[in-house]
Amino acid sequence: MTATTSLHPLDDAVVLTPGAADIFTGRTTAPYWNMVGPFGGITAAALLQAVMQHPARLGEPLSLTVNYASAVAEGPFTVRALPLRTNRSTQHWWITLEQTGQDGAAQVTTSATVVTAVRRDTWSATDLPMPDVPGPEACAQVDQAIPVQWVNRYAMRPVTGMPPERWDGAEGDSLSQLWVRDTPGRALDFPALAALCDVFYPRVWRRRALRVPAGTVSMTAYFHAGSELLTQTGSGWLLAQAHGQEFRNGFFDQTAQLWNEAGQMLATSHQIVYYKE
Amino acid sequence: MTATTSLHPLDDAVVLTPGAADIFTGRTTAPYWNMVGPFGGITAAALLQAVMQHPARLGEPLSLTVNYASAVAEGPFTVRALPLRTNRSTQHWWITLEQTGQDGAAQVTTSATVVTAVRRDTWSATDLPMPDVPGPEACAQVDQAIPVQWVNRYAMRPVTGMPPERWDGAEGDSLSQLWVRDTPGRALDFPALAALCDVFYPRVWRRRALRVPAGTVSMTAYFHAGSELLTQTGSGWLLAQAHGQEFRNGFFDQTAQLWNEAGQMLATSHQIVYYKE
Repeated sequence: MTATTSLHPLDDAVVLTPGAADIFTGRTTAPYWNMVGPFGGITAAALLQAVMQHPARLGEPLSLTVNYASAVAEGPFTVRALPLRTNRSTQHWWITLEQTGQDGAAQVTTSATVVTAVRRDTWSATDLPMPDVPGPEACAQVDQAIPVQWVNRYAMRPVTGMPPERWDGAEGDSLSQLWVRDTPGRALDFPALAALCDVFYPRVWRRRALRVPAGTVSMTAYFHAGSELLTQTGSGWLLAQAHGQEFRNGFFDQTAQLWNEAGQMLATSHQIVYYKE
Repeated sequence: MTATTSLHPLDDAVVLTPGAADIFTGRTTAPYWNMVGPFGGITAAALLQAVMQHPARLGEPLSLTVNYASAVAEGPFTVRALPLRTNRSTQHWWITLEQTGQDGAAQVTTSATVVTAVRRDTWSATDLPMPDVPGPEACAQVDQAIPVQWVNRYAMRPVTGMPPERWDGAEGDSLSQLWVRDTPGRALDFPALAALCDVFYPRVWRRRALRVPAGTVSMTAYFHAGSELLTQTGSGWLLAQAHGQEFRNGFFDQTAQLWNEAGQMLATSHQIVYYKE
């Protein structure tokens, strides 16, 4: 891991140096470290950042799917972002993150697909309004219940569904709602929003009040905000909501939504997560 | 399109002939034709079928993301299914569907990622029970409101949320629930379940009571059923539910769930869909 710089920790974590065509070089950073690798959200942000930096990019991110094949190891990595197909208003991307294994061979640790699109003003509506919850000023900041570095990169004010106070196996529901933003404050952009889609602790921990081993296998984010709405949102609080749907034979899925404080939906997200026992 | 054979139309539509390593050849079929290409669900099924047939496959499908870059043209296509990384109990796949364009060059029309996994018996639970709705015997079969071939490949008994009777722009909600199965009857397998995840007409049509142009850009399915549960489900009815979340500037997303008649969750799915105006 590198020494911190004067950059915001998120900007530092997604620094990518362009190399040959479609190739970028990055490295893991300590401030977003999770238990055995970087926070999955920051890896998603770095992969999306490669698309944002790519000279051939058309439009803005519409969808992102990240598949976590293995933990990213501490150190350098190579991102390859390939525009597979460019249409009039959409563009389809294929992205891999590779590291050199102990045997000297390159190994894919993470793969992703991204669709970017040029968006137009159309009829718009929601079928999932922001829940009516107390605002961020009415919710208390919490100290982190989970002792890993990356959680300190977010200010979190839970509304409901905090990690259980006692890990006693008392089953409950799997809903969490929290006000969240980067800390230190930082104007929201697409990589930051992608990372926030992964900000929830594992639903199975809450559902079971048991801290079983768990890790995201695949995450998808749909971006409903364009850059104009991200700019309006700035460094404000987001309401982030997640709940599990089905927990079966070692894997569960969750759906998530993120709104800005004005109640505008910024992103929806889904993931499937491995758990043990 | 080829003449029909004695195979079930779904089996016929996903016939893939193995070629060089990781390469399969298929072709579109008339019975699953949509407006300007095959039904997106049957394309998803064909891509997943390549993984099912691949000699290196480990385990069963856990997640599938399909990105629809352009309509698949009538005729032959080439599927490349590449195992990117094989772990102890999960395997990560990269899949493309290519066709030869008018200029003689191969073009990617569709890309996908798949994760397969060896699943184990663990603690299991649901946080989204099947809604309490009338059973399939209490719901009437409907003639198709949408005049395309593929809808005739499914028996559909809507519970709620049929296509609007009048396309008069009267806005409503975007929820649909229906009992559905392949017709003729066919024992459920992973490709068929993947196709069923795309069985819903566009949510924006129901939300607006307007038939604006619309098409899926990216779909993700998470499989909660293993092959044993699929076998138990057999050719029975599934309850399929979908609702839209956000409709904004030319794209909306939907979430969907599919249960068997016994109330067991088989799959959850999400997609982001282009719409006009």
